Order: sequence, then C-alpha cells, then structure tokens
Amino acid sequence: MRTQDLIEKKRDCKELTPDEIAFLIRGYTRDEIPDYQMAAWLMASFLNGMSETETQALVEEMLYSGIVLTHEHIPLPKVDKHSTGGVGDKTSLVIGPVAAACGVAVPMISGRALAHTGGTLDKLEAIPGFRTNLSLDEFKDVLARCGLALIGQTREIAPADRKLYALRDLTATVPFRPFMCASIMSKKLAEGIDGLVLDVKTGNGAFMREFEDSRKLAEMMTSVGRAMGKRVVALITDMNQPLGRWVGNAVETFEAIETLHGDLEGDFAELCLDLAAQMLIVGGIETDLNAARHTVRHAITSGHALERFRACIEAQGGNPHVLDDPKLLSQASKQRVITAPRSGFVTGVETDEIGRIVMDWGGGRRRLEDKIDHSVGLRLFAKLGDQVDAGDPLAMAYYNDESKFEEMDARLRAAYRIEESAPKLEPLIKAVI
Amino acid sequence: MRTQDLIEKKRDCKELTPDEIAFLIRGYTRDEIPDYQMAAWLMASFLNGMSETETQALVEEMLYSGIVLTHEHIPLPKVDKHSTGGVGDKTSLVIGPVAAACGVAVPMISGRALAHTGGTLDKLEAIPGFRTNLSLDEFKDVLARCGLALIGQTREIAPADRKLYALRDLTATVPFRPFMCASIMSKKLAEGIDGLVLDVKTGNGAFMREFEDSRKLAEMMTSVGRAMGKRVVALITDMNQPLGRWVGNAVETFEAIETLHGDLEGDFAELCLDLAAQMLIVGGIETDLNAARHTVRHAITSGHALERFRACIEAQGGNPHVLDDPKLLSQASKQRVITAPRSGFVTGVETDEIGRIVMDWGGGRRRLEDKIDHSVGLRLFAKLGDQVDAGDPLAMAYYNDESKFEEMDARLRAAYRIEESAPKLEPLIKAVI
Repeated sequence: MRTQDLIEKKRDCKELTPDEIAFLIRGYTRDEIPDYQMAAWLMASFLNGMSETETQALVEEMLYSGIVLTHEHIPLPKVDKHSTGGVGDKTSLVIGPVAAACGVAVPMISGRALAHTGGTLDKLEAIPGFRTNLSLDEFKDVLARCGLALIGQTREIAPADRKLYALRDLTATVPFRPFMCASIMSKKLAEGIDGLVLDVKTGNGAFMREFEDSRKLAEMMTSVGRAMGKRVVALITDMNQPLGRWVGNAVETFEAIETLHGDLEGDFAELCLDLAAQMLIVGGIETDLNAARHTVRHAITSGHALERFRACIEAQGGNPHVLDDPKLLSQASKQRVITAPRSGFVTGVETDEIGRIVMDWGGGRRRLEDKIDHSVGLRLFAKLGDQVDAGDPLAMAYYNDESKFEEMDARLRAAYRIEESAPKLEPLIKAVI
Repeated sequence: MRTQDLIEKKRDCKELTPDEIAFLIRGYTRDEIPDYQMAAWLMASFLNGMSETETQALVEEMLYSGIVLTHEHIPLPKVDKHSTGGVGDKTSLVIGPVAAACGVAVPMISGRALAHTGGTLDKLEAIPGFRTNLSLDEFKDVLARCGLALIGQTREIAPADRKLYALRDLTATVPFRPFMCASIMSKKLAEGIDGLVLDVKTGNGAFMREFEDSRKLAEMMTSVGRAMGKRVVALITDMNQPLGRWVGNAVETFEAIETLHGDLEGDFAELCLDLAAQMLIVGGIETDLNAARHTVRHAITSGHALERFRACIEAQGGNPHVLDDPKLLSQASKQRVITAPRSGFVTGVETDEIGRIVMDWGGGRRRLEDKIDHSVGLRLFAKLGDQVDAGDPLAMAYYNDESKFEEMDARLRAAYRIEESAPKLEPLIKAVI
C-alpha cells in the first residue's frame, strides 16, 4: 500500500477499506507517514466525505492507537459523560459524584478550556492541590476507591487523536463530523467504559450552532459507540445562554459545590439531574427515567454525592475543605457590578462572547499552551426571558485587571439583547437520541 | 494573514486574492509555511478548483520565486518550445538548431525522462561529453555564441515549482490543470523569452489522453502567457503512437541528427517543420506559416541548422563528431528483431506501454533519481495504418540485458493491435490555439 494511492482514492471520491484506514492511522501514529500526506488526506476526506464504514474504522484505529483501559477490578458498571463544550457547563463536577454515589464507576478523562468554552480540568484545578495529571495506575486506584476519578488526557490514550488534532487545527480540517466523532469517541472509549452519555450542545455558545448539525453528530457518535457494543445515549441541549449562573473556573466549581449541597434550582441543576439519570440508565442501575431522576435527587439531598466528591478530591491531592468553605477556592481581587443598559426582557445572549469575555480576562485560553487565571469569572443575574430595568445588575464581574474593566463592561452589556416583549423560551433538552 | 485561514477560504470554495496566493507561495518557498499546510491547500484547490485570477497569480508567484533571465545582449527574438511529454518526441533537438539558424535565439531549459515519457536532457547526454548542467552565466554565453543553449532546470529557476512539484507528487495533486500550467509556464517564462510555442500532446502516450483536457490546458497556458505580454501559440498534437521511428535516448538523438541531415519523411519531420515554423512566427521572423515552413526546410537542407547544432554541442563540451559518425553515440550490446504475431493493419499502439518497455530496459526512470542507460531503445518499423504480415519485423530492439528479452518481446507484440481493416488515421496536428 502507498499513502499517495490512498490519498488519490479519497480525492476521487472512492471509499477506503478499514485496512486502508488502518494503514494511514497506524503509519501516521508511528511517524512513518509524514504530516503533509496526512494533511492531503484530511482535506480530501473533509471535502469528499467519509462513509459510515470509514468513520467506524477511523474511530477504532484512533482508539487502538493507544492504551484502552479495563477496570475488571471494579464490579460496577463504568459510565462516563461527555459534553461537546459550551459556556458555564460544570455538569461533570456534579454528575460524576452523583453517579458514583448511585453505584456507577465514572472513569472521567476530561479536557481544558479552549476558545470561548470552558474545560473541566481547569475548574478542578481551582481547588488547591487538586492533581489532574495522575498516572493511569493512580487513576484506576482512585476510581476503585471513590467510584470516580477525574484526569486529563495522557500520552498513552489515543495518541493518534492528539497528533491528528494538532494537524487538523493548522490545516482547516477541524469542523468535520467524522473527525469530531472519531476524536471524541476514541478518547472516551479508551476510558474502559460500558456506557456513555453524550451532551451535544447546540446554539450560539456551542461549536455547532445549528440543531441539525448537532443531531447528525449525535447520531454518528451513538451509532459508532453502539457498533462497538457500548450503551450510548445522546442529549441535544440548548447552549443559547450560559448554563447556570456562573462562568469562569473557581466560580463554576463553587456553583457545582452549591448544587451538590442541594441547590437544585435552575437550568444547570435540571441538566445535571437528567444527565446523571441517563448515566444510571445506561449503566443498568435504573430502567425508568423518572425513577432514575428520583435516585439522583436523593443522592444529592442525602449528601452521598458530596461525600463522593470529597473522597475524590482527597484522593487526588486536593483540599476537601473547599466543599465547606468556598473562600478556599482561587479568589479574584476585585468585583464590580455590570448593569443593564435599558429596561425590558432578555431576549438573547451572545453566549460565545460571554465565554470570550472571561477568556480575555485571563479565565480561558486562546491556544492550548496559554496559562489560565482560575479566579476570574462572571456571576450572571439575568437569564433568557428575565425582565430587567435599566440600571439593574446584569452580572457581577470577578477580576484582577482593572485596566480591562471598561472594555469588558461594554462588551458584556452589548452581549445582552434586551427588548420590549418576552421571548419564547426553548426547552433545555431538545432531543434524546 | 494566517495560512490556515487561507486554506479554510479555499476549502469553502472562495477565491483567493493575488496577495493571498503570494503569501502562500512566498512563505512556502522561504520554508515559513510547512509542507502540511501547503498540502492541505493543494488538495483544497485540486478539489474546489482555481479561478483564472488565482492561476495567473500562481504562475507569476512561482515565476518570480527565482531568477528570471534576460538576454539584452542578444539582439534577436528569444523563443522556446515546450512539449507536455510523449514517447519518441525528440523535436527539441531538431527545432532548436533550426530556429537558431533562422535568426531566433533559443534559450531552452529542458526536463528529463519520467515514467513512460522521454526527456531532452537524457537524449543530449547520449552525446559523449555533452554538459547539460551549465551555470546560468555559461548558458547565456552559449546562447549568445550559438543562438541556442540547452540545459536542465537549475536551483535558481522557479524554486517554488521544484518544491511544490515534489509535494504534489506525494499528495496525489499532480493532475490538476492550474498546477500543471503554473509548473510549465513558470519555468518557461523564467528563460527570458519573448515568445513560446507549446506542443500539447493528446492520446494514449500523453499525460492527457483526452483531446478536451489537452485543449483546456493549452488554452490556460496560452492565456496566462499572453497576459504576461508574451506571444504564445499552442499546437495540440497526436500522441496515439510514438513520434517518428525510434524510441530511446541515443537512438532518438540519432534520428534527430538524421533529420537535420535532411531526412524529412514521416510524422516526426512533419511536426518539426511545423513547430519550428511557429517559432519563427512567434518570434516575428515570418508572418505567413507556409513561408515559415519553407524557411525552416531550407535551414535544414542548406546544412545551416546542423552547423548550429554542431556549434552548440562543441560549446557545451560534447563531441561534435557524433553528427558525422552516429556510432560515437552510446551503443547497446545486443539487437534483435521483434515480429508481428499476425497479419493485418496496425490499428492501434499502446504508446505508453512502448515507453514503459524502454524504461524497463533501463532507458527511462520510474523516479527522478533513477540512473538511465542511454544506449537502449527500439526502432519501430510499423506505424498506425501500416499493413504487416505475420512474422514481419515490428521493431528492432537495442538492449543490454538478455534476460529481459522474452518479456519485452511479448509486451511489444501485445502493444500493437493488428486487425483486418485499415484504420481511419487522425491528423498529427489536431488544433492550433
């Protein structure tokens, strides 16, 4: 087999066989196929499309490019949740402990903040001492002891994905569903899970703004996972405003802790309850969604979920007292109110802009290698449909760099659309696949 | 400007500006843009197409990536000819001297044999001592003294093309007209010419088998050259059988010398006369094609063209006595007749296969770095439309490796289609553009 012949085949709209996909991915991972040939194949695939068979082969080759964990020492169903990324999405910090408290083992390998979106690892690292860079042996040990372990991607997990992602980023081949599907599924399936709950975001704070695009990606991922014998369910959820009331790192961890303490009001808690309930169903712990929601709610109100999180924080070197004293989380030095420029109903929020405001204050990353300031963030007082008067607080800003306040203030005010009539509100959970 | 944004633009079927093309080609030539980004752009362009404006910009950027020669010391029109490549095509060796004898300066930068096609440099190097690797100063000096100089591409000429061609070869992006046009025209225009005659081959021995493809390439190249103020004419010529009677290196040089000695029978001489006549017209020496053909014929019969070739060979270090004693050219050690397997008319020849037979005997190259045996070749007795009897000689093989004879014999016999009825013959020159 010659790489250029496979590029030519895809260039000419022909389907590659699983063996041919294997040749490409294995050769590339071993540095036998150069970046430039892979780049040509990426672009040819992007423009000419990939069949289901090709996508399935791509996922499997990327998965088996590295270690695929097993957890035979843990006699529980192993289930994870993955979100395609949004603003204010700190669900992992709640549903990981909740699912663990309900008898599911949650081996969670998470990502970092990028562009306007946040990342679970950065939120966890707002907890003093918390280590996300466990070795795989430590990871398995924490999982066995706490029913929950939370780390970042390691060198051993899906190395093909890491190499391909960097290349896609520089060759304008990122937003292509089969690649997105393979990138997500290869990493998730390497965790050693029996089931997976996908939270596919849609809206102006998501990478996919259109419902149809999100639906197609959700279908592709569930179909790929099921073909590999996993129980997979995907929720398509609204990302047309930040999830919950807080956006940042330490402040989102704070909000997650409040939820684990029993504050179950609002869209964030609603999504946590539903995602966790789906994890119980996928894990075979429950069969009925309402019963599963009830079990989940009880795991929170009983304090069991919080105790799981405490155990996990301790096991991963973090200070568990943050659960009782949120001041122990990273704290910004300044705070100031941002007010509504006019009276009316909040009919729209530029969700990605809210994410970028936090990023530009240091709370996010333009590039993966950027440093982050865990303390900065926004508390949002107004959600879609809320009525505000001119001068009412829209948000409280937590920040360290005063010189940026005026610009951020103006940007945040501009990110809210305030009109005379109340908007029609969309449901949070738009579809289950 | 960011390279990935330009890749994305082309990926999304948008037209790049000349500045953006310049950014890509200059950055790539200076090693500032990596191969993998260029490969993604090549594939996106291949699949989404390039506009006339983009193609023009590409040619100009590739041209000005290196030295563009001028020959102000030579008070003659400078005209070259370029062929897109075929089998048995040794026209350069005849029309270069002929045009020079008629008052045109011919600064010819030529290529080497590749795949089934031959190359002028290899044919010249069958002349003992002939140096094709002159410096550009030597090149200009020989041109001034002889009206004709023949060299290979140097590092200084269109370096962007050399780098891009190597990348295209490995990324399945070679057969794309705008790239082919830019590769040819950037090198030819760098020679410092006022006019150019293009011989675009069509048929089973050419890179483009379909007339329409050849016509489109011819139109693109003439249009690009004219936009740069050059006089350009393109002939689309038949390559459904080898040109002339000989295929190889030394043997084709021999055939060219025979033609310069006045043997003007057959398709090869016919094409030489027409191409050289077009060079005189493009160079402003003649205005009428028939008058030009007459001038060309006289340059040969008078011996003036042969004397120009003699001067050029001497100036470039070759042994000019080859013009009088062809045995001084590289000679193969063995020769053997290959006979017709049946009686009838020659109705088809697999021209590319004839080229590959010579290549597989050592007379050509699979890759540009392969060594070549100048002595091997074929003398073809039967042309399209000829009547043969079973057992009649089809060809005489000149070779060194006896172990391959049986296979080559069988392949050559299989390359001729012999049928009962005479075929309808196509004209040699199919169009002038």
